[in-house]
Amino acid sequence: MSTEFQLDFNKTGGMIPAVVQEHGTGKILMLGFMTQEAFDKTVATGNVTFFSRSQNKLWTKGESSGHVLKLRELLVDCDLDSVVCIADQLGPGTCHEGYWSCFFRRVEGGKLVEVEPQTFDPKAVYPAKEAK
Amino acid sequence: MSTEFQLDFNKTGGMIPAVVQEHGTGKILMLGFMTQEAFDKTVATGNVTFFSRSQNKLWTKGESSGHVLKLRELLVDCDLDSVVCIADQLGPGTCHEGYWSCFFRRVEGGKLVEVEPQTFDPKAVYPAKEAK
Repeated sequence: MSTEFQLDFNKTGGMIPAVVQEHGTGKILMLGFMTQEAFDKTVATGNVTFFSRSQNKLWTKGESSGHVLKLRELLVDCDLDSVVCIADQLGPGTCHEGYWSCFFRRVEGGKLVEVEPQTFDPKAVYPAKEAK
Repeated sequence: MSTEFQLDFNKTGGMIPAVVQEHGTGKILMLGFMTQEAFDKTVATGNVTFFSRSQNKLWTKGESSGHVLKLRELLVDCDLDSVVCIADQLGPGTCHEGYWSCFFRRVEGGKLVEVEPQTFDPKAVYPAKEAK
């Protein structure tokens, strides 16, 4: 993609952190990493796309589950080394564990406490060991 | 800090990305990285603390500017490798360039467009080359 700016992919091994925030609610749904190619594909297709560090390849969120994140707005920070994707969630939840947001637990007194209900059964959506 | 969970600091060189979201507005103010020590200090003091990659040391946001981020709630993601700090902002803005949020620019047609007004004069707050 031709842009008049250059993101800084040098600080984190060729990637930048990308936060997904739900349009409307403002809820933070997940955080992933993007390479230049993932960023370009996100802009070109409107489907939020990451670089999967565990699978070492581009990964469009929802490509197996159908739980696509449709980009509404893309914000860039002052240092050009992180982005916020404001998006609509298509599907019952972003988290591969069956929650609306991956950030479904809060730290309380040294423990993790669930603060959101499950919204779907992950076993019905994600075959074992497949991409999320 | 003694916790019943262990964050995964192995994927990004001993650090995890930490998003700061403003309490009340839901606005994403900034994204930084935390080591275990930065995470523990954030929990212990209630002041959001990062590991500064450029200065290679712990850095409590606002330690020079006074623009402290007061922690309200700390969320952890499914993979235990990123956190969201829900916080109140003390001061006229989080960004060292003088904006309420570091994400003050939007990608539009391959360009960056400012979508927020400046809220303070950074030269009056940040001496040259000092910590943010």
